Amino acid sequence: MHSIEELRTFFLDYLNQNKFIQTPSELYEPNNYFLQIGGKRLRPTLLLLCTELFGGKYENALDAALATEYFHNFTLIHDDIMDNAPLRRGFPTVHEKYNLTTGILSGDVLMIQAYQCLSNIDKKYFKQIFDIFTKTAIEVCEGQQMDINFEQHVNVQHQDYLEMIKLKTAVLLAASMQIGAIIGGANEKDADTIYQYGLNLGIAFQIQDDILDCFGKPEQVGKQLGGDILQNKKTLLLLEAIKIAEIRNDNQLKKALTIEHSEKKLKTILAIFNTYQIKEYGTKIRDSYIEQSIAYLNKINIDKEKKAILNKLIEHLVLRSF
Amino acid sequence: MHSIEELRTFFLDYLNQNKFIQTPSELYEPNNYFLQIGGKRLRPTLLLLCTELFGGKYENALDAALATEYFHNFTLIHDDIMDNAPLRRGFPTVHEKYNLTTGILSGDVLMIQAYQCLSNIDKKYFKQIFDIFTKTAIEVCEGQQMDINFEQHVNVQHQDYLEMIKLKTAVLLAASMQIGAIIGGANEKDADTIYQYGLNLGIAFQIQDDILDCFGKPEQVGKQLGGDILQNKKTLLLLEAIKIAEIRNDNQLKKALTIEHSEKKLKTILAIFNTYQIKEYGTKIRDSYIEQSIAYLNKINIDKEKKAILNKLIEHLVLRSF
Repeated sequence: MHSIEELRTFFLDYLNQNKFIQTPSELYEPNNYFLQIGGKRLRPTLLLLCTELFGGKYENALDAALATEYFHNFTLIHDDIMDNAPLRRGFPTVHEKYNLTTGILSGDVLMIQAYQCLSNIDKKYFKQIFDIFTKTAIEVCEGQQMDINFEQHVNVQHQDYLEMIKLKTAVLLAASMQIGAIIGGANEKDADTIYQYGLNLGIAFQIQDDILDCFGKPEQVGKQLGGDILQNKKTLLLLEAIKIAEIRNDNQLKKALTIEHSEKKLKTILAIFNTYQIKEYGTKIRDSYIEQSIAYLNKINIDKEKKAILNKLIEHLVLRSF
Repeated sequence: MHSIEELRTFFLDYLNQNKFIQTPSELYEPNNYFLQIGGKRLRPTLLLLCTELFGGKYENALDAALATEYFHNFTLIHDDIMDNAPLRRGFPTVHEKYNLTTGILSGDVLMIQAYQCLSNIDKKYFKQIFDIFTKTAIEVCEGQQMDINFEQHVNVQHQDYLEMIKLKTAVLLAASMQIGAIIGGANEKDADTIYQYGLNLGIAFQIQDDILDCFGKPEQVGKQLGGDILQNKKTLLLLEAIKIAEIRNDNQLKKALTIEHSEKKLKTILAIFNTYQIKEYGTKIRDSYIEQSIAYLNKINIDKEKKAILNKLIEHLVLRSF
């Protein structure tokens, strides 16, 4: 078994070896640019890890790993247009560096190139993986649409938010692990279980991301904090705070949400979050998903040492200290 | 064998039966809208035709036909954004009726739904058709990028233009026919030959489209004419006219290209086209592709009566009178 860091390095090497050299360069160069500005390479690395966990060779899974990374980056390129985002990981987004047309079309071809990668998968698994990949890709689009819808909706429920992050974030993480397991030789039951493990882990991961955005320390999180609060983003934390405010008939939060983008807004809302114990609430929900994740992990037929790796992964991904 | 009109009707019925009912409706309803504003349904109809030509049942090819129509409409939705087009077939385009975000995201999911349709194809043919479909989808994006590039380039060559329309238009027509043939039970050689038949037919079809845009009669073409000329679009016809003007050291055309969008511009350039015999040139090139198309047709192992149908198709698609 290789370590996660080793697998990430193997993937990065493969990504570099597979830079697009096709023409027209105006179509492909923006994808090379975007793919090299960074990212945790979480999906491909976890995919390779799961291949090894079930006794397979990571080399057999590199194309599938590339497909998940291409697909993920395609969604980022298009999401950045929809969000009007000028920067991603500190670098100009594709539509910003080039133009709208390039953002759309280079994104399109990147998603088709993801399918092209799948073509190299062993034919024994190809159709099964194709179906998982396609189902997941559809769900990610549906999750993005839900996220967009929530900006307009007044009455977003906690359950809606959890469904949205499941689709937008968790399913691709889960599918990557499932695909890796299949290539590694896992039976159907184990592959399904690892999907459920990844799904719950992915939801916990996103909730943790939301918690860190409010309560993290900038030097640990590596980005500006409070972005969600400043944008009135309807995360689980804000939804809970709105609910508590309604129950308590407390109109401070409603007022604070109307304050314009400022340090004052951030401080006011964070103070309310503290009064309402929102961090504790978020942590509780997060932990309930971690528990489910562990419950699925216990059902998988692999050695204790291998389970320990997946257990450590939870800590690594979700229980980042703050 | 069913007639082309019958097959088109079967496809339209299937398209209607498969309206998207998934949620979120904000994601899918725009695709239902766009798919019902019309179009010739050329690709799916030809796909079904080729299935029957090789002795298969059209019912077995309906999902593949749906995939080609979904994919084609995905490209139209995204192209309309890139072209800033407010109307398509007289109806508001998706980004115009809804917004940019919807145009991007509904288009994205439509392309993935195209892959989803492929999943229902008989497993005997699935991988082969998946590979043809993916290769073609990539080429269509490359063709669109070339088309965009040509707007900026000063020195577009005739060969570049022909390569562009091959990728942007002809390959999807050709692949649809090849996929239909495969599902119908054609051997590899025949399926490849029908691809080449479709490819040449598709190029001839596009050249004819360019000719009609300049020299057609509005009541026959069913749209405003002269659009290409008014936009200085570098079609084969304009490229040839530019070449002749250079050879003859005639600067009338160069001047005319600087005239702004007007009836005067259209008349002036059409007069130059007539002097230079551009219509005759376009017809000659078009006919050379038709000849190649017929040459491939003659190599296919099907009955004379069936060849006659494909021969008639050429007339129907390309030799529209004007």
